[in-house]
Amino acid sequence: MKKVALGIDIGGTNTEYGFLEKNGNCLIKNSISTISHQNIDSFLHELYLSIENTKKELEENIIITGIGIGAPNGNFYKGTIEYAPNLKWKGVINLVELFQEYYKLPVFLTNDANAAAIGEMIYGGAKEMKDFIVITLGTGLGSGIVTNGEIVYGHDGFAGEIGHTIIENNGRLCGCGRNGCLETYASATGIKRTVIELLLNHPTENSELRGFKYEDLSGKIIENAANLGDKIALEAFNFTGKMLGLSLANAVAHTSPEAIFLFGGLACAGELIFKPTKYYMEENLLRIYKDKVQLLPSGLSGTDAAIMGASALVWKEIGGVGGRS
Amino acid sequence: MKKVALGIDIGGTNTEYGFLEKNGNCLIKNSISTISHQNIDSFLHELYLSIENTKKELEENIIITGIGIGAPNGNFYKGTIEYAPNLKWKGVINLVELFQEYYKLPVFLTNDANAAAIGEMIYGGAKEMKDFIVITLGTGLGSGIVTNGEIVYGHDGFAGEIGHTIIENNGRLCGCGRNGCLETYASATGIKRTVIELLLNHPTENSELRGFKYEDLSGKIIENAANLGDKIALEAFNFTGKMLGLSLANAVAHTSPEAIFLFGGLACAGELIFKPTKYYMEENLLRIYKDKVQLLPSGLSGTDAAIMGASALVWKEIGGVGGRS
Repeated sequence: MKKVALGIDIGGTNTEYGFLEKNGNCLIKNSISTISHQNIDSFLHELYLSIENTKKELEENIIITGIGIGAPNGNFYKGTIEYAPNLKWKGVINLVELFQEYYKLPVFLTNDANAAAIGEMIYGGAKEMKDFIVITLGTGLGSGIVTNGEIVYGHDGFAGEIGHTIIENNGRLCGCGRNGCLETYASATGIKRTVIELLLNHPTENSELRGFKYEDLSGKIIENAANLGDKIALEAFNFTGKMLGLSLANAVAHTSPEAIFLFGGLACAGELIFKPTKYYMEENLLRIYKDKVQLLPSGLSGTDAAIMGASALVWKEIGGVGGRS
Repeated sequence: MKKVALGIDIGGTNTEYGFLEKNGNCLIKNSISTISHQNIDSFLHELYLSIENTKKELEENIIITGIGIGAPNGNFYKGTIEYAPNLKWKGVINLVELFQEYYKLPVFLTNDANAAAIGEMIYGGAKEMKDFIVITLGTGLGSGIVTNGEIVYGHDGFAGEIGHTIIENNGRLCGCGRNGCLETYASATGIKRTVIELLLNHPTENSELRGFKYEDLSGKIIENAANLGDKIALEAFNFTGKMLGLSLANAVAHTSPEAIFLFGGLACAGELIFKPTKYYMEENLLRIYKDKVQLLPSGLSGTDAAIMGASALVWKEIGGVGGRS
């Protein structure tokens, strides 16, 4: 009998899940569509059926010790998803309660960036660290902050929304309804907007990106163009790093982390994003912080990263790994 | 025999100290000049003599359990003051080590805003809180951040410099050498600069503040003028609250505190500073945080507040009060 945690990562497009041992080994994993479900009940029903089918494929006997879920706007204290802009299910969803109708097990929910931070703490590059930040660069920008060896949930479970710090007065309109949020600049969506702006402002600059509609652009396409020397693409990465670097310098002035990890699609662009981000972070750091804060790629490499983070939440909460200092 | 802590608050101008019981009762206090000492050795020597003289005036017998010191740029982990812009002693000062040449006692040092936060936690308005922020509005702007019931020191002991988050690109020049730091707007110095700017930009506006040189202006003078309806003074408070409110909204997106306490001279201006700060904070908060974060005056009222904070550091570290959750 192997003890496992069921780790689930709910994304705006797809939901991945897997059965993972305490050492992070994933026995099996699978995914379903999130976006095709207009309501939470049909989503959970399909997810349950999929999980049960996947479990049958396992050759080992397992005991599920608990379920860990990472989701946008997931609230650790309340077990709810609240007003998530990137999900179709609106308002407040009692996800943990709904889940426990299917599984009489401990269920823990947190936002996807906090799950990534817990994963980093237990399996990744932050094993020896007590103070660090994980920035997830996806459709939006999420953040998980760790101080004194503990995730910062804040009094209401919603701490760590660095993507929604306002960095430009009257700046770009954000999905949250406000203007100038960091994630409108530093995210897959943000860099796409930057490319479109740069193309408009440099009408004579030759760029292969000019052939794309906004909807068809992606971080990966911009990355490929930059690697081929496309000036618009390179400048888009530079500008993204500038906005991110400035914001990270301000984040350091809050919690003074030992390291900041970049996680997610845009972070895979390597030096294209790390170099300008590091440069502008250092440029804007207060003297006492300069040359102290490491900017690192996530230590959770590979495709299991998100479900590793979600499953790590279980081991952290019900014992054995991580835990309070 | 009464057990006491010696609490010391080192400010740019004066240094206050007192002997305080665990319940916060101050048996006796006194102060010496900081600014008149060009070097740390002569400062410490005078401070020692003054402390010994003051101790003799006590009628009770006391045992000093420890010494707690709040100082600008004080580092809890290293026991140093490092590169404090508002002190004459430059570079890195091993304050705890130097202190222990006079007193063979446990000596704890932290920055003044962290000391204020510990005071708030133990004696003030944050007794029941695990997540809050204290903002000290003095010559500069200091901040002490508490999450999960613990002061956030960060990996290097220098966390909590919200006064040095950059809120305006190419903004006002700061004492730290950079531009656009929050404390160049929201502090006693900041509001003076705002008044001078407003007077220049509104040359026909009648204002009693026009009679003052920059050096002679003070937060208190601007407060008095505002209370008499002076439009320049009122607008200066409004603008200060706007810059502070926006920054606090961003701080909330980091650690999601239950309350933010305003401490120090400018905070004594009451509604003049609280009203615009609250308004602009709410205006800029992400939806999930709106109408949740209390903006409160410090619960450490009176003139002992700073030394209460410093002495609280002793009780917190050597036992009995506060402590880890």
